[in-house]
Amino acid sequence: MSTSLSTPDTASELRQIRACVLHGAKDLRIENRTISPPGPNELQIAVRATGLCGSDLHYYRHYRNGDIIVREPMSLGHESAGVVVGVGSAVTDFNLGDKVALEVGQPCEKCERCMEGRYNICKDMNFRSSAKAFPHAQGTLQDRINHPAAWCHKLPEDLSLDLGAILEPLGVAIHATRRAQLPVGRMVLVFGAGAVGLLIAAMAKISGAGTVVIADIDGGRVDFAVKNGFAHRGYTVPMKRGRNVEENLEIAKETAADVGKVLKTSGGPVVEFDAVFECTGVPSCVQAAIYANRPGGKVMLIGMGTPIQTLPISAAALREVDLVGVFRYANTYPTGIEVVSKKGLGHPDFSKLVTHRYKGLEAAESAFEMAGKTKDDSGNLVIKVVIETGEEDRARL
Amino acid sequence: MSTSLSTPDTASELRQIRACVLHGAKDLRIENRTISPPGPNELQIAVRATGLCGSDLHYYRHYRNGDIIVREPMSLGHESAGVVVGVGSAVTDFNLGDKVALEVGQPCEKCERCMEGRYNICKDMNFRSSAKAFPHAQGTLQDRINHPAAWCHKLPEDLSLDLGAILEPLGVAIHATRRAQLPVGRMVLVFGAGAVGLLIAAMAKISGAGTVVIADIDGGRVDFAVKNGFAHRGYTVPMKRGRNVEENLEIAKETAADVGKVLKTSGGPVVEFDAVFECTGVPSCVQAAIYANRPGGKVMLIGMGTPIQTLPISAAALREVDLVGVFRYANTYPTGIEVVSKKGLGHPDFSKLVTHRYKGLEAAESAFEMAGKTKDDSGNLVIKVVIETGEEDRARL
Amino acid sequence: MSTSLSTPDTASELRQIRACVLHGAKDLRIENRTISPPGPNELQIAVRATGLCGSDLHYYRHYRNGDIIVREPMSLGHESAGVVVGVGSAVTDFNLGDKVALEVGQPCEKCERCMEGRYNICKDMNFRSSAKAFPHAQGTLQDRINHPAAWCHKLPEDLSLDLGAILEPLGVAIHATRRAQLPVGRMVLVFGAGAVGLLIAAMAKISGAGTVVIADIDGGRVDFAVKNGFAHRGYTVPMKRGRNVEENLEIAKETAADVGKVLKTSGGPVVEFDAVFECTGVPSCVQAAIYANRPGGKVMLIGMGTPIQTLPISAAALREVDLVGVFRYANTYPTGIEVVSKKGLGHPDFSKLVTHRYKGLEAAESAFEMAGKTKDDSGNLVIKVVIETGEEDRARL
Amino acid sequence: MSTSLSTPDTASELRQIRACVLHGAKDLRIENRTISPPGPNELQIAVRATGLCGSDLHYYRHYRNGDIIVREPMSLGHESAGVVVGVGSAVTDFNLGDKVALEVGQPCEKCERCMEGRYNICKDMNFRSSAKAFPHAQGTLQDRINHPAAWCHKLPEDLSLDLGAILEPLGVAIHATRRAQLPVGRMVLVFGAGAVGLLIAAMAKISGAGTVVIADIDGGRVDFAVKNGFAHRGYTVPMKRGRNVEENLEIAKETAADVGKVLKTSGGPVVEFDAVFECTGVPSCVQAAIYANRPGGKVMLIGMGTPIQTLPISAAALREVDLVGVFRYANTYPTGIEVVSKKGLGHPDFSKLVTHRYKGLEAAESAFEMAGKTKDDSGNLVIKVVIETGEEDRARL
Repeated sequence: MSTSLSTPDTASELRQIRACVLHGAKDLRIENRTISPPGPNELQIAVRATGLCGSDLHYYRHYRNGDIIVREPMSLGHESAGVVVGVGSAVTDFNLGDKVALEVGQPCEKCERCMEGRYNICKDMNFRSSAKAFPHAQGTLQDRINHPAAWCHKLPEDLSLDLGAILEPLGVAIHATRRAQLPVGRMVLVFGAGAVGLLIAAMAKISGAGTVVIADIDGGRVDFAVKNGFAHRGYTVPMKRGRNVEENLEIAKETAADVGKVLKTSGGPVVEFDAVFECTGVPSCVQAAIYANRPGGKVMLIGMGTPIQTLPISAAALREVDLVGVFRYANTYPTGIEVVSKKGLGHPDFSKLVTHRYKGLEAAESAFEMAGKTKDDSGNLVIKVVIETGEEDRARL
Repeated sequence: MSTSLSTPDTASELRQIRACVLHGAKDLRIENRTISPPGPNELQIAVRATGLCGSDLHYYRHYRNGDIIVREPMSLGHESAGVVVGVGSAVTDFNLGDKVALEVGQPCEKCERCMEGRYNICKDMNFRSSAKAFPHAQGTLQDRINHPAAWCHKLPEDLSLDLGAILEPLGVAIHATRRAQLPVGRMVLVFGAGAVGLLIAAMAKISGAGTVVIADIDGGRVDFAVKNGFAHRGYTVPMKRGRNVEENLEIAKETAADVGKVLKTSGGPVVEFDAVFECTGVPSCVQAAIYANRPGGKVMLIGMGTPIQTLPISAAALREVDLVGVFRYANTYPTGIEVVSKKGLGHPDFSKLVTHRYKGLEAAESAFEMAGKTKDDSGNLVIKVVIETGEEDRARL
Repeated sequence: MSTSLSTPDTASELRQIRACVLHGAKDLRIENRTISPPGPNELQIAVRATGLCGSDLHYYRHYRNGDIIVREPMSLGHESAGVVVGVGSAVTDFNLGDKVALEVGQPCEKCERCMEGRYNICKDMNFRSSAKAFPHAQGTLQDRINHPAAWCHKLPEDLSLDLGAILEPLGVAIHATRRAQLPVGRMVLVFGAGAVGLLIAAMAKISGAGTVVIADIDGGRVDFAVKNGFAHRGYTVPMKRGRNVEENLEIAKETAADVGKVLKTSGGPVVEFDAVFECTGVPSCVQAAIYANRPGGKVMLIGMGTPIQTLPISAAALREVDLVGVFRYANTYPTGIEVVSKKGLGHPDFSKLVTHRYKGLEAAESAFEMAGKTKDDSGNLVIKVVIETGEEDRARL
Repeated sequence: MSTSLSTPDTASELRQIRACVLHGAKDLRIENRTISPPGPNELQIAVRATGLCGSDLHYYRHYRNGDIIVREPMSLGHESAGVVVGVGSAVTDFNLGDKVALEVGQPCEKCERCMEGRYNICKDMNFRSSAKAFPHAQGTLQDRINHPAAWCHKLPEDLSLDLGAILEPLGVAIHATRRAQLPVGRMVLVFGAGAVGLLIAAMAKISGAGTVVIADIDGGRVDFAVKNGFAHRGYTVPMKRGRNVEENLEIAKETAADVGKVLKTSGGPVVEFDAVFECTGVPSCVQAAIYANRPGGKVMLIGMGTPIQTLPISAAALREVDLVGVFRYANTYPTGIEVVSKKGLGHPDFSKLVTHRYKGLEAAESAFEMAGKTKDDSGNLVIKVVIETGEEDRARL
């Protein structure tokens, strides 16, 4: 790292930075903020790459996310990586210039959940770019942020910061596969071929699943997944909608039967899945997920969608198909770094998930608009949009 | 055991017995059947006690159980114990006169589920008094049945056959507590104070739960549970019904909050449950069960009720409250015998669950009518109705 | 609590206290120390009860504990409870006068083990009265100590501080039963009827073990355990010693066979244990523990004894009898408080474990000498020796 | 399959076959035996490929295997695959000509272990080519055997029978990785680069281990493992022997430290393994395995070696490093078939394990002699020796 970095950042004075701040639905503004030097246990990070996530998009569009309403101007962004530009006085294991991925949720570290290692469901979690707590924890779409060193994860020198940003949604995928506890050789179905679905499919493969089938209503995404090695097989879900609950459940049963046939060899036994990872949050998919499992299977609920759903609950309970919640992640970053650092081991190329890149905070609006599409104007898939920042910042250093 | 038993039963000829057979809704008939000697690996059992279960009652009333329609006359009864009156040629570990509890479901013993010890969800399960397989596996409301010795469980000499019959629903309770995997000291809520709910509450206590609260709309059942040591505390759920899904969910939230207060000490922290065992199958209870859990808790789905339910699924998934199915039981009888044999160790008196006894197959109709009530004409609770048989049979031996 | 407490303790000045300090083998001295006010996140605790543990005794006798050598004068004591006499400025959930149990080990809270909830095996654990870290974390045999509020556990008003001190070894017992993950109804053997063995036997019972047998070479301890409800059955291990490894293993096999017979009913099957909790650390017991398990059983290694042992390792591995380490405890205090607070639920009376009490730091030497005996001069068992302190301190307030 | 097969095999008459039978140490004889038609639930299998295993070799050399002494002439061989040449009357899911792998152990299917899915530790296991039960279950080095269809596993048409034979040791590897329950991304060490060690290393990789290091005293085996993709990294263990227990333990500590450095990046943290799979049974390796684990790690005990070992048991217990037994396998064949059928997914080429092939039962002696060597006369590694049989048999059909 250039020594020019070290001079200003060890200084104790305040510094002017710019932040991209949401003031209302679709009202993003670039503002100047003042950042203090990092606290004793903090790092100051120059943010370099931030992936846009569905929750960011909800906030951008509606100034709320489901029940959670924004109550003060808030920076978005929580899938981020950057470079250390300031080191708190008590921090010993980071140096200026280190590449880091940010784990942006800060749990209370005292409650029973934190103490047993499930800090992702800590009630007092303070998560950047979420309006749940007040004052809101500001997101990473800023030139710099101060962040506790304990929640920064050092990246290998040769890892791109785009991949560093991917570690956040990859954390969800790692957490989901851990919670599923699948032994090697199992049959896995993933509903939804967006970024999280693709990452989960990849993690299931890497964890030794026998066959991973990915299903989506968008055939292009399914093709992308299979072609790029995120899943073994694909299935395009036909668009059908029933006129009532009963018809919808019949359609869900058909979907489950049809996707099962993707695995069925001629004359072989009916194949059912050992686990279904549901990444859409759409009731028809959750229903199909229940039907697609074998007795004793699992529906992993990852997709955040319709909060109240009508489900064939007996079809789950009477076959001991469990519905297992997956919320964010805990203790996944070291594994994630391990995973994305591997090359040539049958791992997919995770960088292919970043389909669109925008430069600078000023491009945030364009980036959010793109993140809301499934295809860009050229007909290319939109999977993960990343805002790359910090060149201006670097110039000014 | 009297030697008079041994003479006729080792004979190889056929024998006439009587069976109580359901021919249609509320159409029970006593019929003569012929029973062959037990096969090489079978026992012939003179049935002595049969508890009536909710599924029996459904068949009795509707000649169907949910989607499962009876297709030929069928004996009911599957919670049974009796006495060995015939021993197959290859059976070495049973003797005439042994008391046994019957495990009435016979799985395929070959499929992957059977091989991994989860035979309760074997797809080819053949379960007595269920019309799922065809021909139907005839239930135990017969003078005698032949049953594989491998699925008979020897009872201690001094254990009553009523308690032997209780082992079947107790198996559900043992299986439910095993699936919940609760470490010692946890807070447990049970919805439903019928026989299964009471047994689950008792098993949770015996397994070391810190506090077990039982909730029911019937205050009498709640009192019964607490007074007889099946649960530590009780809560009577008020009867409320909303006009739409939203109102119902609000009511469910209130129920969850109120039952939580049963545990809350003044000034202490808000108490949430580590697990809720849902034994009613009623949507309002499943909803309240989701809300009553702490993050990372579990809703154990035991009650067989409304097969399609509208649930606050995000309230579960986003807090990693898992919905865990519980269907029948596997490998529970040895533990059940251990449990009901204990005296004076803080265990409740399980025989108190048998509130009504009827003598002889002829009394089956009266027994079923009583099993359909919540209170008898004297105002006493109806929990478990047992049909005691075999005195006539014994006389004829 | 008397208001007289509040006046001096909220003051910010230093305070003189007395400490019982070990300066060499059997060289205990009462010294004056100065204690600063509690830090922002600390409590100041007037220590009231401290149980003596085997490791304390080792330090007292040898100025070392196995490989760990004392390098500076050190207060002993880590099984302690007391009263809050000072509250740090950032602490909100404790008040002056609160009774608390002390969890005396402070892990790093950052490493992978801490993050996953296994802080008991944190490599940077700083544990009071252990000489492993340097400077040594001073033990609780002092008038007062400052301790992080996060590691203090509020006790119910009506719980005795002796029982508060018992929570520390009870934590080991809770941790051991958790690691064993035994479902209800299992057969359990405990080797060693000292304080930890008794607590483990009790926890196994409370957790629903079918039968708990406790074994010790001292028949008096075995009788104590059974008579006071800490175990269901007992077995006195005969003193035998072979002339070589082979003979010792034969003796261990005999011990295993004989203790198994305690459970064997006449004509019943050979009973083997589902788990054996080894609390002695003596090779002959570890060997017998391996042999006493059924295939698929577990030897829980709790006793700290001979560090290098000759074991029949194939007799374990070929039957998948796992050897599972148990070191201290994590997250056990809330459960422990729950457990010792229960009355009349088949729980043993834990206060019976405290067989000898000494008043004041000055009595420490007598207390240690007593703790080193198995029986006192009157022939009474010595199980747990507690030093009660703080009356002088209280007088001076 | 040729129709010529079907004519003779559906006949009910007896048939003459040849068997390779061990009559004493190194006394193998080809004998004629008579085989009856398959029973109703059996298949008759023409054995085509049999791998030689360490236990076979022990019997061959010593007419005993550890404590187990051969009491009657016994065919060896239990890693086998073949072709169906006869189908029992009650068997519906196999046809003449099907390729099958044989699971040669027949458990009782009734005991508690069998019922819970751990049939590998059934006490009444009857395992071909083991002299434990009497009469001994004859091994597969015969032209044909009758075997229960339930314990035959159909192979894909295009899978070689050599790979079918490999499924048996692969079962051990699958069972070992299942018992280890390692989440994705873990650091794994395997001691011993023989067939089982290589298979375990491969299964750990396939199951998502972050890095798998294999260690052996034979550098050639280590190179083989890494070069062929069975492990990521290798370590050649230096040959050192101490003069006493203490020196040996010091050497084991050094080995552990040195193999850990294989992972250690410059300046990075000390790397310890999350699990060590010990496949040698040699005390020095078991000792090093204990030291090489991080706190909370696992030593998986797979190697069958010295039955009584002197181990640093406190170094395990005090860090909660568990010693987990692994004996044979249960329910692994479907997964094994899945695994060896995969191509081009980062899986190693399992067929490379078969380094030496011998044709015909007459070659058994040569095969056993080769199996006892570590290198052949040309200096090539000897890993798995397979006896291919049945050409003569086929000719005679």
